Amino acid sequence: MRADMLESVLTELNGTSADIEASGVISTDGLMMAAVLPQGMDEDRVGAMSAAMLSLGSRTSEELARGELEQVLVKGDKGYVLMTHAGEEAVLTVLAKPRAKLGLIFLDVKRAASSIADLL
Amino acid sequence: MRADMLESVLTELNGTSADIEASGVISTDGLMMAAVLPQGMDEDRVGAMSAAMLSLGSRTSEELARGELEQVLVKGDKGYVLMTHAGEEAVLTVLAKPRAKLGLIFLDVKRAASSIADLL
Repeated sequence: MRADMLESVLTELNGTSADIEASGVISTDGLMMAAVLPQGMDEDRVGAMSAAMLSLGSRTSEELARGELEQVLVKGDKGYVLMTHAGEEAVLTVLAKPRAKLGLIFLDVKRAASSIADLL
Repeated sequence: MRADMLESVLTELNGTSADIEASGVISTDGLMMAAVLPQGMDEDRVGAMSAAMLSLGSRTSEELARGELEQVLVKGDKGYVLMTHAGEEAVLTVLAKPRAKLGLIFLDVKRAASSIADLL
């Protein structure tokens, strides 16, 4: 049931913008809790890369006096990966297109992360 | 001479906004080429964390079909770390305050990265 509720938050998030291609909720140790991904995208790969980026992001934030990690954004020439803490136990990862309006996506992702934190 | 020119690009960049606290140019293997850092911040630490984030960021971008890495942004509750490729050989790392206007900082950093790429 909780997995269904998480998935419905993700489906709603993906629907807020045509620029959001995929989203997933991942435990902080890298295991997928729920995902709405396009066909052909591997859940385990998304989980593993998200967990690795967040772990190194946390360390970077601390070592460079930026405090506790909130978000990591990776920009490639074919789009964005945005990882956001959703409570203590989980991470919301979103894949967006290169032309995405980041301001809107940050806002929608923040709301979804808060809903997810409430569910967990 | 070239180190002086790089340093003057960084000094100018830090001067564009009171929200930019520090900046450095780092070779893609993690060695510092030039830096304008506040007292007490360790050059080697900035270099090492930047290189590690970029390396994992590149892999994440490729594995999740986001193409070639352009930027990594880490947001902590006490500020931002923004890493941007400056040509093939170097990375521009900027530390900014939590209240920074990201849109302006992205613009200034993009210009500085292009000047740095021309110098190298």
